[in-house]
Amino acid sequence: GSDMSTSINLAVIPGDGIGQEVVAQGLKVLTAVLPQDVKLETKEYDLGAQRWHRTGETLPDAELEALGHHDAILLGAIGDPSVPSGVLERGLLLKLRFAFDHYINLRPSKLFPNTATPLAGRPEIDFVVVREGTEGPYTGNGGSLRTGTPAEVATEVSINTAYGVERVVRDAYERANARPRKKLTLVHKNNVLVYAGHMWKNIFDKVGREYPEVTTDYLHVDAATIFFVTQPERFDVIVTDNLFGDILTDLAAAVTGGIGLAASGNINPTGAFPSMFEPVHGSAPDIAGTGKADPTATILSVALLLRHLGYEAQAVRIEEAVSADLAERDGTFRSTDAIGDALATRVAG
Amino acid sequence: GSDMSTSINLAVIPGDGIGQEVVAQGLKVLTAVLPQDVKLETKEYDLGAQRWHRTGETLPDAELEALGHHDAILLGAIGDPSVPSGVLERGLLLKLRFAFDHYINLRPSKLFPNTATPLAGRPEIDFVVVREGTEGPYTGNGGSLRTGTPAEVATEVSINTAYGVERVVRDAYERANARPRKKLTLVHKNNVLVYAGHMWKNIFDKVGREYPEVTTDYLHVDAATIFFVTQPERFDVIVTDNLFGDILTDLAAAVTGGIGLAASGNINPTGAFPSMFEPVHGSAPDIAGTGKADPTATILSVALLLRHLGYEAQAVRIEEAVSADLAERDGTFRSTDAIGDALATRVAG
Ligand SMILES: CC(C)[C@H](C(=O)O)[C@@H](O)C(=O)O
Ligand SMILES: CC(C)[C@H](C(=O)O)[C@@H](O)C(=O)O
Repeated sequence: GSDMSTSINLAVIPGDGIGQEVVAQGLKVLTAVLPQDVKLETKEYDLGAQRWHRTGETLPDAELEALGHHDAILLGAIGDPSVPSGVLERGLLLKLRFAFDHYINLRPSKLFPNTATPLAGRPEIDFVVVREGTEGPYTGNGGSLRTGTPAEVATEVSINTAYGVERVVRDAYERANARPRKKLTLVHKNNVLVYAGHMWKNIFDKVGREYPEVTTDYLHVDAATIFFVTQPERFDVIVTDNLFGDILTDLAAAVTGGIGLAASGNINPTGAFPSMFEPVHGSAPDIAGTGKADPTATILSVALLLRHLGYEAQAVRIEEAVSADLAERDGTFRSTDAIGDALATRVAG
Repeated sequence: GSDMSTSINLAVIPGDGIGQEVVAQGLKVLTAVLPQDVKLETKEYDLGAQRWHRTGETLPDAELEALGHHDAILLGAIGDPSVPSGVLERGLLLKLRFAFDHYINLRPSKLFPNTATPLAGRPEIDFVVVREGTEGPYTGNGGSLRTGTPAEVATEVSINTAYGVERVVRDAYERANARPRKKLTLVHKNNVLVYAGHMWKNIFDKVGREYPEVTTDYLHVDAATIFFVTQPERFDVIVTDNLFGDILTDLAAAVTGGIGLAASGNINPTGAFPSMFEPVHGSAPDIAGTGKADPTATILSVALLLRHLGYEAQAVRIEEAVSADLAERDGTFRSTDAIGDALATRVAG
């Protein structure tokens, strides 16, 4: 994380669908929690489906450059059924993650008291997935030959470098070492994806020798999904590749009360580029504008943002406010705005 | 499937760990259910960890050739911690799936009455995953450069052909069309893996025009894992790629009462090569020899084997026996052997 400063120059990308609505609540809570003497400047970037429809642009160079000068980025959600699948994901969201070298995709999962889990018996869940963010099957490498014909061949290339794997593995060991249980699980599929899988495992073992207090464990991704629903309490910190992390964190969100609570940070720990914070959920166009979107995931992402910028006390205030708020929810409908107001009041109090 | 014949020439690969034990029960039930006039010949193949330790061989050409002359293969489980990860998986299990062009990896999921699911509320679950078996990230393409050094690069290449995708998609439509709900869901990640994902989606849509009665649906793999735990009843038939299918079917097994009940068939519907039937679970060396292994997954795999060979009535008898047996289980421990005996008695009765 960076040092605490007396001003935050934040880029805001509300994006599509409920993105607009949840980001507004995130900013409301951010404003409420910040000390008086911290100056918050925000600049909104008009990126996403509407911009693409209007101009054909996803993320022009000038805006990428401008975004790079902020302290951090708060993003709502990207994507709309009116845009061909992949255009905004690759051209905007992943472009940002790759351009700003967000090699840590941090996704904590916690089953808060009183939240609905589909799991019987309400196991204790409190783990964090450290998902690699700049390599693996997400690089966009691959192609298609004789596209659209019966002789088509399409490939996707997962690229993994020792450089990229070691830095995320090391970050995960640091996080595990700082937690009470000090346990780190590597998830991959090294019995099938032997080239990438063995490299991940070798680096995991090598770096592990520097962290003798951390207990380690390896699971194939298929087996990991089983434990997510039968024994989620066994996990503390998980480190995994970009695609496996994508899959596992949606499952983690589902078992910890739903995607409405799942926060994430796309982090570049070196500070060379701004880190970007966003809820794990998508733009949910079906409920956009209805006030049904739960802004909690975005508000918890704001907590991750504050922690990254050095405002630990404020991050904790938000997390405690969410916890207290969830404990009091009784199933009565509360609008996006009402949840945002309630949390803003709590953190200010 | 092939035509019903008056003899079955079965290859048996017990493999490692509990493989031996569960296969013995599978054969017991198979023998009990077959009509008197059907001659069952079995030949056991000594393949797996012990063979590899003894001879360094995983699957010699002569044995691959010999296996090809059987009507079908029954496999227990492959793998042992004493063998480096990938050696037996790639050299034996996947070699068989690829050599015999098992392009349909069929994995039904059903929540039987009275079985334990980790899901609260016991949703109705009865779907089948049609997992592609010969392409995707499982081809073994890829490599590693400067292996073991800080400059290592490791790749995994997912190869997808219109030929391979169309045949599995068509098979899935046929299966969906034959079921009461007639619903087919494609699972992929076409917002990120755009080359392979778009090819899958285009072929899925094209073939779908020949099945106007089948309702279709598309889900990204991450979203699919959410619905597996929050709304599994929404699924009927799922078609997906080799790796996504691997992950989803372990999760499916977990939510339907555990990996002890999950059956699978590696099927070549053309009959050009023998199809291979195996439980989804692994060799579980920790419980090998203790009598704790549940042979039900293998016995249900025998049902799939019988259905494939044209013995529909016998397949149904096994499935009904399992259903009845599970309904009467009261949590008292029953050994591998006792479960096999109970099911053999039921199907013979
Ligand atoms: C929208 C999509 C590109 C993205 C991903 O796959 O990373 C999303 O699923 C996520 O997890 O943030
Ligand atoms: C053992 C392994 C190679 C195999 C796979 O990945 O296909 C297993 O997980 C399965 O699902 O049959």
